[in-house]
Amino acid sequence: MTTKLAQLRAEMVPALDSFLQMRLKRTTDTAVLPAAMTYSVMAGGKRLRPLLMLAVVQTFKPQAIPQALPAAAAIELLHTYSLIHDDLPAMDNDDLRRGLPTNHKKFGEAQAILAGDGLLTLAFQWLAESQLPAETRIDLVQTLAVQAGPMGMVAGQSLDMLNQGKTLSLPELQDLHRRKTGALIKASVLMGAKVAAVNEQRTAALTTFATQFGLAFQIRDDILDVTATTAELGKPAHQDQAAEKNTYPGLLGLEGARQALTDALAGARQALGQLVVGTDTTLLNDFIDWLEK
Amino acid sequence: MTTKLAQLRAEMVPALDSFLQMRLKRTTDTAVLPAAMTYSVMAGGKRLRPLLMLAVVQTFKPQAIPQALPAAAAIELLHTYSLIHDDLPAMDNDDLRRGLPTNHKKFGEAQAILAGDGLLTLAFQWLAESQLPAETRIDLVQTLAVQAGPMGMVAGQSLDMLNQGKTLSLPELQDLHRRKTGALIKASVLMGAKVAAVNEQRTAALTTFATQFGLAFQIRDDILDVTATTAELGKPAHQDQAAEKNTYPGLLGLEGARQALTDALAGARQALGQLVVGTDTTLLNDFIDWLEK
Repeated sequence: MTTKLAQLRAEMVPALDSFLQMRLKRTTDTAVLPAAMTYSVMAGGKRLRPLLMLAVVQTFKPQAIPQALPAAAAIELLHTYSLIHDDLPAMDNDDLRRGLPTNHKKFGEAQAILAGDGLLTLAFQWLAESQLPAETRIDLVQTLAVQAGPMGMVAGQSLDMLNQGKTLSLPELQDLHRRKTGALIKASVLMGAKVAAVNEQRTAALTTFATQFGLAFQIRDDILDVTATTAELGKPAHQDQAAEKNTYPGLLGLEGARQALTDALAGARQALGQLVVGTDTTLLNDFIDWLEK
Repeated sequence: MTTKLAQLRAEMVPALDSFLQMRLKRTTDTAVLPAAMTYSVMAGGKRLRPLLMLAVVQTFKPQAIPQALPAAAAIELLHTYSLIHDDLPAMDNDDLRRGLPTNHKKFGEAQAILAGDGLLTLAFQWLAESQLPAETRIDLVQTLAVQAGPMGMVAGQSLDMLNQGKTLSLPELQDLHRRKTGALIKASVLMGAKVAAVNEQRTAALTTFATQFGLAFQIRDDILDVTATTAELGKPAHQDQAAEKNTYPGLLGLEGARQALTDALAGARQALGQLVVGTDTTLLNDFIDWLEK
């Protein structure tokens, strides 16, 4: 059976990929730096965050999908920058990502830092240059900056680095992950809501959906690090434990973590239930189904 | 004699400093990351770039100075991020900046990378949250991103790293510096012009001014690295030669570099001459005088 998510993916991933490739070429003009940026952007990511944004637009204002595409692509630039910097020797020191050498392994540390800086900056340029109304573009810049910046994603990575080897309480771990992984997922949902001009009440329900979905996403990632093989992950398994990272299985045990995942997914589904009058939530529910597998 | 620049500095530097300090506190909420960000922002920079932006506003629309302040502060955040990342071990590997330990020496490499990422992201947040009209805010985001991004400043730093130990031609060196130092100076002037709604013709003259001023600034920096002492610079002197950097004195000799500086300053002054009908260019000329000393 073809799900709505499978359909969105089949339509939008090729559109996103060709937009990213073409637009990266047009907004860079040297040799090595654009190659480093493009290498990681085109390294076969699942495009989860842009798809999530587009799914919100598709749910509430499908005719806005074409104007939303550059903003969705900007989210992927921002996500890619965060992966490049997280992989650096001074951070997680990872050699492999999606089965390929990490950016600094391929281009050296200096160019990898700069490729990340370039992608982060370019994300805001693409948002500013999109065809959406000026007010919407400013809302998108603001939303992305708040969620990705020093109260959001960057703070999450900072806390993660500072807390390696220390044992966090569950609320501390939740705060860390809310920032590190949750913030950009929340940004994606909120940016979709801005483009689709979703009202305040529904935006509140979507925010809860995003929070619970982001939490579930991180718990699942932690569980997979314990249970999956290196081949399945495209990067070495069991890295979290080796790096003394704080994780859900580390804190709650594998069964406890699985229960927390189930709870978060139920929370996400319940939030979508609040949207249901006049809204077809099948597509957004498909994202939850996908994490349940 | 008090120059107009001295007057602007006396009024605006304390205003910028207190805005930066207060707003940094309000737009961060963890412990270490904000400390690392604030450390470098408040490390006693000259605030040249925000002052340049405010000087353009002061020249063409002085009543807009209060609304322009957050945007000027955002430029300083962006400049500070670039210094933190340029100083990293994988880049220029500098231990001292303005007489103080560099960010990574003080906070470690991971937090320094993240402090840079945080400041870059926050620059766009502050632009988006300023009180200027939405159209102007979008123009500022776009201008800053283009000049600071992978066709501008980040590309300049990338080329600088790639070309260490190679000898560039004069046009190649000019292109490198146009990006590495010139782009953010150009952004500052153009952002001032946007806020002050300067017309196209005058913006063209300001762009030439910015380009020549930026060039002069870099040549002067290269010359000082050769002629000044470590105490005068607040960082080790003669570092460019040690790092096999491409510089104007290296390519043209010290006298040739001094002539190039004189030429660039003359070009900047000539560009201001094109503005003169109905415009008091004393303040902008003061910036040129300052580099001539």
